[in-house]
Amino acid sequence: MEAIRFQDSTLYLLDQRRLPHEETWLRCDTIPKICEAIVTLAVRGAPAIGVTAAYGLVVGLQDVQQRTGRITAEDFKQVQDTLAATRPTAVNLFWALERQEKIFRANPKEPLAALLEEARMIHQEDIEMCRTMGRFGAEVIDDGDGCLTHCNAGALATGGYGTALGVFRAAWEEGKKIHVYADETRPLLQGSRLTTYEMIKEGIPVTLLCDTMTGQLMKSGKVQKVVVGSDRTAANGDVANKIGTMQVAILAKHFGIPFYAALPTSTIDMSLASGDDIPIEMRSGDEVAGFGETLFAPAGVDTFTPAFDVTPHELVAGIITEKGIVRAPYTENLKKLFA
Amino acid sequence: MEAIRFQDSTLYLLDQRRLPHEETWLRCDTIPKICEAIVTLAVRGAPAIGVTAAYGLVVGLQDVQQRTGRITAEDFKQVQDTLAATRPTAVNLFWALERQEKIFRANPKEPLAALLEEARMIHQEDIEMCRTMGRFGAEVIDDGDGCLTHCNAGALATGGYGTALGVFRAAWEEGKKIHVYADETRPLLQGSRLTTYEMIKEGIPVTLLCDTMTGQLMKSGKVQKVVVGSDRTAANGDVANKIGTMQVAILAKHFGIPFYAALPTSTIDMSLASGDDIPIEMRSGDEVAGFGETLFAPAGVDTFTPAFDVTPHELVAGIITEKGIVRAPYTENLKKLFA
Repeated sequence: MEAIRFQDSTLYLLDQRRLPHEETWLRCDTIPKICEAIVTLAVRGAPAIGVTAAYGLVVGLQDVQQRTGRITAEDFKQVQDTLAATRPTAVNLFWALERQEKIFRANPKEPLAALLEEARMIHQEDIEMCRTMGRFGAEVIDDGDGCLTHCNAGALATGGYGTALGVFRAAWEEGKKIHVYADETRPLLQGSRLTTYEMIKEGIPVTLLCDTMTGQLMKSGKVQKVVVGSDRTAANGDVANKIGTMQVAILAKHFGIPFYAALPTSTIDMSLASGDDIPIEMRSGDEVAGFGETLFAPAGVDTFTPAFDVTPHELVAGIITEKGIVRAPYTENLKKLFA
Repeated sequence: MEAIRFQDSTLYLLDQRRLPHEETWLRCDTIPKICEAIVTLAVRGAPAIGVTAAYGLVVGLQDVQQRTGRITAEDFKQVQDTLAATRPTAVNLFWALERQEKIFRANPKEPLAALLEEARMIHQEDIEMCRTMGRFGAEVIDDGDGCLTHCNAGALATGGYGTALGVFRAAWEEGKKIHVYADETRPLLQGSRLTTYEMIKEGIPVTLLCDTMTGQLMKSGKVQKVVVGSDRTAANGDVANKIGTMQVAILAKHFGIPFYAALPTSTIDMSLASGDDIPIEMRSGDEVAGFGETLFAPAGVDTFTPAFDVTPHELVAGIITEKGIVRAPYTENLKKLFA
């Protein structure tokens, strides 16, 4: 399963706003189209946003090249800044743009081929990192486990394969009979729409629940492990992820269930001492007051709209990366990982 | 605000499935219509279901009287059993039907007038209990408090005024500047559709949040008190309420916020030693996989569908009733309440 393709000089994105009912590919051949796809969550998930931004620079600069016959450092910066302004929380967006900036500086005259090669490498590396991460993560999954996840940290959220769902895929490929439980994940229902879709396509047994039912599911003894993704992780192991993740971690602690975050090291932001420094995106109240075109609440109702939260490292049993599983003390052990 | 009216021998229910966008009154002049209204949640909330069942017996037996010219004990039992089979968790349903059974036994020849009088009394008592409960509950609410509630335990869920929302109304009437936070309460969105609607009509400031955001709201320091209703409370103080309540209580404990349940003593079931004995209704998977006519998830997805959960008494700071606030040890103090 994949959600990002680059062919014939054009970026194609599987429109995740229309899943699971319609599989439509968006043709993204301009920067405004790519930015809109990121802002409206046609493409989402920290690693997938990074891959999209890397290709996005190529698309934007191709256009500049065609219009003006050349690409200046100002052109690069303008396209880079436009892409960087789409969403604030996922660090891979900035990380991918910085990787491309180095490539541009090394190839100022004819940057396009090198930038495209780097984008393809970022994409391919992401898939490989997910597979490696999956193998490491599968070590903590036992045969017969009920595995809860929140939001969608799957193939759709990455270059392919997935982070949290990559762990489930790897365990399943090893023959472990797991059962996945998907929180629906309001407001945008990525669990209901995307995680169930991926697991059903994969043939891995999956049960959907509302976000109000997570505690009751745990109480009933059906959950042995929780695994989620992350949009940005601080140097002390605090994990930013989709809103609702922190409370799932609190519930897991209450019921004695280990809570893991699976994430590529590209999502670890060693420049931030703690999760308090991670910027949390606030989104539109319309998403809370309804879904899609349907308004549930009285028109004009006041809303609380955080899109992410930060799970404190004390609640995290382990951080699963492509370099192995990091355990507490996180400040020390994450530093070693990057040494 | 009221949701139940009896006039011209007919029961009228405000159709809560259509709120907040349409205020439609259902004409319920037969038992099948009343049962459908209860099962499909046109009327919902433990006290409101009790009041509806009390009037429902009158409607059903009027029909028997008209068709057969008399009402036998078998007729009574049949109508009673039909109403009792609608929903399993709220104890007020059974409590109201038992009160009416005593009235029927005392007036076997001409029961209708006495049953209607009793139904009106149950209705009126419920409103008065809510007002008294509200005054007691307001004692724990401080000026400036952020007050979180889950589901809708308001005028719409009772004969009028409400239990948890009755506490907020009473505090507001006393001049306390509170701010209400309403969990949207998936799957049926009673918080989004009904609690916001009631608070906006009342002029009490209210903010809506998704169920994934409760922990983040608490972490941000905006919540000083949690107050919820209850569908049935066991003799040890375990409180059954809408699914998601238990996890709100766990989160409240984590963040050091007192969690209260407001409920008329008619919802306390002293025959049950603990909450483990409270039957939990499982509802349709369609409610979890979508909302109304809209399907979010892949068709046919497996779902987890509990409609209620039980909050253990250890997490309850106090049970607010029309006889005062009961505190731990609950087994002892609830027994005293009924002595």
